[in-house]
Amino acid sequence: MRDRYLRALRRQPVDRTPVWIMRQAGRYLPEYREVRKRAGDFLTLCKTPELACKVTLQPLERFDLDAAIIFSDILTIPDAMGLGLTLEEGMGPRFEFPIRSPGEIEKLPRVDVEARLDYVMQAIRMTRRELSGRVPLIGFSGSPWTLATYMVEGGSSKEFRHVKGLMHDQPDAAELLMKKLTESVSDYLRAQATAGAQSLMVFDTWGGVLAEPDYVRFSLEPMIRIVENLKADPAVSDIPVTLFTKGGGNWLELIAASGCDALGLDWTVSLASARSRVGHLVALQGNLDPTVLYASSDKVIAEAVRILEDFGDGDGHVFNLGHGIHPGVDPERVRTLVDAVHRESAR
Amino acid sequence: MRDRYLRALRRQPVDRTPVWIMRQAGRYLPEYREVRKRAGDFLTLCKTPELACKVTLQPLERFDLDAAIIFSDILTIPDAMGLGLTLEEGMGPRFEFPIRSPGEIEKLPRVDVEARLDYVMQAIRMTRRELSGRVPLIGFSGSPWTLATYMVEGGSSKEFRHVKGLMHDQPDAAELLMKKLTESVSDYLRAQATAGAQSLMVFDTWGGVLAEPDYVRFSLEPMIRIVENLKADPAVSDIPVTLFTKGGGNWLELIAASGCDALGLDWTVSLASARSRVGHLVALQGNLDPTVLYASSDKVIAEAVRILEDFGDGDGHVFNLGHGIHPGVDPERVRTLVDAVHRESAR
Repeated sequence: MRDRYLRALRRQPVDRTPVWIMRQAGRYLPEYREVRKRAGDFLTLCKTPELACKVTLQPLERFDLDAAIIFSDILTIPDAMGLGLTLEEGMGPRFEFPIRSPGEIEKLPRVDVEARLDYVMQAIRMTRRELSGRVPLIGFSGSPWTLATYMVEGGSSKEFRHVKGLMHDQPDAAELLMKKLTESVSDYLRAQATAGAQSLMVFDTWGGVLAEPDYVRFSLEPMIRIVENLKADPAVSDIPVTLFTKGGGNWLELIAASGCDALGLDWTVSLASARSRVGHLVALQGNLDPTVLYASSDKVIAEAVRILEDFGDGDGHVFNLGHGIHPGVDPERVRTLVDAVHRESAR
Repeated sequence: MRDRYLRALRRQPVDRTPVWIMRQAGRYLPEYREVRKRAGDFLTLCKTPELACKVTLQPLERFDLDAAIIFSDILTIPDAMGLGLTLEEGMGPRFEFPIRSPGEIEKLPRVDVEARLDYVMQAIRMTRRELSGRVPLIGFSGSPWTLATYMVEGGSSKEFRHVKGLMHDQPDAAELLMKKLTESVSDYLRAQATAGAQSLMVFDTWGGVLAEPDYVRFSLEPMIRIVENLKADPAVSDIPVTLFTKGGGNWLELIAASGCDALGLDWTVSLASARSRVGHLVALQGNLDPTVLYASSDKVIAEAVRILEDFGDGDGHVFNLGHGIHPGVDPERVRTLVDAVHRESAR
């Protein structure tokens, strides 16, 4: 197997810097849009293991990527809790039954991962077979705080008024919600690793909207518990875990102390500065501004070189964007990027 | 004059921590909505000095605030450049003639501040008279980068595709745009100080969406030039200047080295950590999460205390929110906050 990605996560020497792209299986690829159209809607695509496997592999057929990431959504857990998820193009996610009151939080079930999320495990097993060792497969989940924002707001948000209201005025209920989500996310990631995921990533898309003490209590602490739960289980303890808080540049030391193996970094953070702050503890993943892929090939190459130089010599860098790829990007720019990262980082 | 605010900006001892609120004259106040309704639209309100003066003073009549900020919009400069600004409730700003090409940037005029923005200076003179020394009056502008995002995108944005595209693919044109905006913003702030503004603030609402090298080149450098221009003019060189990059927590050392007097901080940054990083160079303004004002009075007080303690003993703290107040906030929460800051910070 091409194991650059796993070696970099363990801060071991590699021949070239590994690269993958957040949302690499997605709308910017015409072959994805084709499958998506046939599936009818996004959730059907997620929930049909053959189709999820198919789109997971699509970017690997085009580009020289160093990892696959299972095609799924960050909101599968609240969906499995019965909140009635719908995902419409251009609308963002919606929950039919948002959670607002302590009573509703009390009633939330711990997700029976085997029963309710088996479609994800099937897709993982199928994809591992199809990959037959070419590159590692990444499993993932939304972070408890990020899941809670959607569950309480009922969808995307700008102000996060309801979820922050819960946190400010009913902190015990908010903590219970985080505790329940922490259990279910831990079960979910453990099951993904058992099914064949060789690396795990937690996406904390909305941790960066919190004040530091709130971030620590409601976003970071639950992620620390998840890392602990995974590392305490001998069956999955050697699977590297990456934590990614978008907008978390202020808190790198705190996140790196969680026991995770790597930090995802958005593009506002200098890799050199991140490395001097936490590079002795964790590997770093990132961090091209996704809008650079709208620019010329020359600019894409120049930025790849800049980011490689920003990290500098040494081990522990996984190249990626600083956030998901935009749907309007020309796939040829991704080829340019992936090839430039490999070419320019050859040891 | 109650000069706590100006003394804190100069890191001089104060009897109580001064407090003002970004967008303190605004939609959360029923008396503001009344004037706004009579004015017909937002721009008319900005451009009618009597009305701008009136709403500037409204929050001072209700609350024990330590500063007034002239009621205006951050987009007055591109409006004065002829881009055709419209501001509709709930829609965000729109420019009828966005700027995209190098040719359009070439043609942009340096704003004749006296001729085109005299309504702001009139409002400042009128407000100073009405205040008759009660508290200091703040003047402000959007930062060149932030103005450019609206001018190039034609309005608000999530991806900033066009303005970043300009920056990535036509950096010389982007720099020319920044240079022109830097000149006009410098003229504008100088004129506000001459008209009577006793403190100046630059709002860089969108600097935080940039990678570090892009932030330095396209957002921070123009702000540094503005500070230099102001500090080089003996007529206004003693007016304190506050720079506020929302999402700029990664770059506090860089911003503080600009020569400005104070940094505005959003709520994700710990004041204690900001103070240890840059508190020997500048005062700090901030940084309550604006959504806390939706919470109970007890929570508002507890957070005020937490933030005062986070800053700790010593000089150089101006209490504020970490971003503008939300329109749905109950004005009584503002009273609770302002009074709590004064009570809890009494030396």
